[in-house]
Amino acid sequence: MTRRSGLWITLEGGDGSGKTTQAERLEHWLIEEGRTVVRTREPGGSEVGQLIREIVLHHRGDIAPRAEALLYAADRAHHVATVVRPALERGEIVLQDRYLDSSVAYQGAGRVLDATEVRDLSLWAADGALPDLTMLLDLDPAAARARLDSADKPFDRLEAEKVDFHTRVRAAYLALADAEPERFLVVDAAASPDEIAEAIRARVAAILPPAA
Amino acid sequence: MTRRSGLWITLEGGDGSGKTTQAERLEHWLIEEGRTVVRTREPGGSEVGQLIREIVLHHRGDIAPRAEALLYAADRAHHVATVVRPALERGEIVLQDRYLDSSVAYQGAGRVLDATEVRDLSLWAADGALPDLTMLLDLDPAAARARLDSADKPFDRLEAEKVDFHTRVRAAYLALADAEPERFLVVDAAASPDEIAEAIRARVAAILPPAA
Repeated sequence: MTRRSGLWITLEGGDGSGKTTQAERLEHWLIEEGRTVVRTREPGGSEVGQLIREIVLHHRGDIAPRAEALLYAADRAHHVATVVRPALERGEIVLQDRYLDSSVAYQGAGRVLDATEVRDLSLWAADGALPDLTMLLDLDPAAARARLDSADKPFDRLEAEKVDFHTRVRAAYLALADAEPERFLVVDAAASPDEIAEAIRARVAAILPPAA
Repeated sequence: MTRRSGLWITLEGGDGSGKTTQAERLEHWLIEEGRTVVRTREPGGSEVGQLIREIVLHHRGDIAPRAEALLYAADRAHHVATVVRPALERGEIVLQDRYLDSSVAYQGAGRVLDATEVRDLSLWAADGALPDLTMLLDLDPAAARARLDSADKPFDRLEAEKVDFHTRVRAAYLALADAEPERFLVVDAAASPDEIAEAIRARVAAILPPAA
């Protein structure tokens, strides 16, 4: 990948772990620092991705496990090629909600597919592209569930899975972070939003490329 | 794959090669022979597949090549798992318009991706499942284009590609048939529909499992 001075940051963690709040705070800080930020997400970070997201998250009825993994990978392929790479090549900062670690944790460890196959599939989709920094907001699934219950919005297909599924997802996420400590920053999502934002800012500041 | 006495037949070839006509004639003959036939297609042979087919064939705007390949593979994974395998396990005959040879010929040879990668992706999607018989209706692309021009219906995205693209697809199809002569029956699609139907019937009769 040819880059000028962009930076690619992904946020990972279960629903209810505070990814959106922290992405907003990090975005505001980066903008104050004079940076151009592209806030995006997977699935659904492109027009084609929106159509795919509708299928994987809201289709009534089962989707075969390999089909589900391939749909996430298709969304990823289009998103990386048409949104992430162009932004990085313009020297911008990409702040992305979920990437391939979500696929490995949710699909691979949580369901019936082999985690290595799911990772290989994602890497093929993205032509090998990996973020500069991945922030894992780590939270006990019971605490995450309590937060979601109070949010008063309907659960989608994944949110409706049982807490023990989320426990397996959490363990898979932590294993991924252990395997790539240089890429990951693991944050205790039970801490206060201010503490979390400060930890994230410190890490990002350390790797922020010089302003254009 | 556990099977009773099913038979899986796929039809391949460019648009305008007469796949639909021959599938209908073969279906009618098989039904007269007392067989249960499942007529299906890729992409779009399932409810989820219909949604995917809409994206890959009718989305306005480019789709990244890897995303396109992954969408076809997702359709394939769901279709094989929920339509093809259950029918074969019931001992039925699956008569299918396009399968992984289409992906290899169109995506791999015709576009920018490596044919081996596209084939591996399809095989992963289908968990290794291959048809008992693949009929390739081979036709000179200029002749196929002349047939389509007279059919008075709008071209979709793939049909609108140039004739030289279809020439590369044809060569890729013939190479696939050469590599797996036991699975393929190559038929000259410029012959009369009666001659083609007879050649297909003879080959299918030779491998038709005993009736239940």
